Amino acid sequence: MTQNIYKVTILRLGHRPFRDKRITTHCALVSRAFGAERFCYSGVQDNEVVNVVEKVRERWGGDFKMEYVDKPLVFAKRFKESGGVVIHLTMYGENITDKIKDIKGISVKNLLLIVGGSKVPREYYEVADYNVAIGNQPHSEVSALAIFLYMLNNDCLKLEFENTKIKIIPSNNKKKVINL
Amino acid sequence: MTQNIYKVTILRLGHRPFRDKRITTHCALVSRAFGAERFCYSGVQDNEVVNVVEKVRERWGGDFKMEYVDKPLVFAKRFKESGGVVIHLTMYGENITDKIKDIKGISVKNLLLIVGGSKVPREYYEVADYNVAIGNQPHSEVSALAIFLYMLNNDCLKLEFENTKIKIIPSNNKKKVINL
Repeated sequence: MTQNIYKVTILRLGHRPFRDKRITTHCALVSRAFGAERFCYSGVQDNEVVNVVEKVRERWGGDFKMEYVDKPLVFAKRFKESGGVVIHLTMYGENITDKIKDIKGISVKNLLLIVGGSKVPREYYEVADYNVAIGNQPHSEVSALAIFLYMLNNDCLKLEFENTKIKIIPSNNKKKVINL
Repeated sequence: MTQNIYKVTILRLGHRPFRDKRITTHCALVSRAFGAERFCYSGVQDNEVVNVVEKVRERWGGDFKMEYVDKPLVFAKRFKESGGVVIHLTMYGENITDKIKDIKGISVKNLLLIVGGSKVPREYYEVADYNVAIGNQPHSEVSALAIFLYMLNNDCLKLEFENTKIKIIPSNNKKKVINL
């Protein structure tokens, strides 16, 4: 993969298979596409989501990992204790526009990005080093992750993945795909 | 609303109420939050999605409009004929990183952004003035719209909406909300 100085793990809270299946899948896909390494989720275990993302990885390359986490708050605390930086994406947080410079200025490049869940317990606001808002309007976990990852690394739209079986030849007028 | 020189309409193709309810809702919410004016969707009519977005608008302000479109290709063609610019967001397109300057350089500020639908018919590639990829990897309509709107107007994360009943006071450690 093209150089990405950040090692980003996502923690998606409170997955509900019936209601959240596609949102969680899209969260995972954008995380992979934009250069995160690992996607952890809590709530209810859902092999279907894991399989969809795994199939994308097999075809499109890279070594993105999906993982179920039983105790997400403990996971976040341990991540922090082990020296990583915890960033909670919430519309109640400080505007990312005002914080991204600070975040990119930290010497630690090992980041945990937490996304809700409808009601995120107070403890997550406390464990987070940064509570940042991708704008203070309601939108989506998917877009919040996308904008954060893009602001972290503007080159993320041009990442190259290893071990890919398929590749798009960008075109202004049709689908051009090569199978490798 | 804070000045946005662009008048952006979204056309979301092929909505299926059961499968796409939340994805389409999130597409609409991010479109509103990031400054689009109108969200049109084709496929199956779905009042539930419209109501969710309408409730957000009532509480959070602005005058974002939702609209069902019966003949989306005709709609796109008419948009173009009336002088607007049609941009189809597709992972098969040219990388947005290489095209955004061109797009921002056009004097026309009336844009139609088309997002799929799983299989987008060839005609949409043809009617589009630009087929652009938010990276050539699979991710999500939600993140594609978010990144495009953000690249079009970096100030979109700080838009202020009129007639809002609720406002967040950005905070690094808790939820602070004022009811107006």
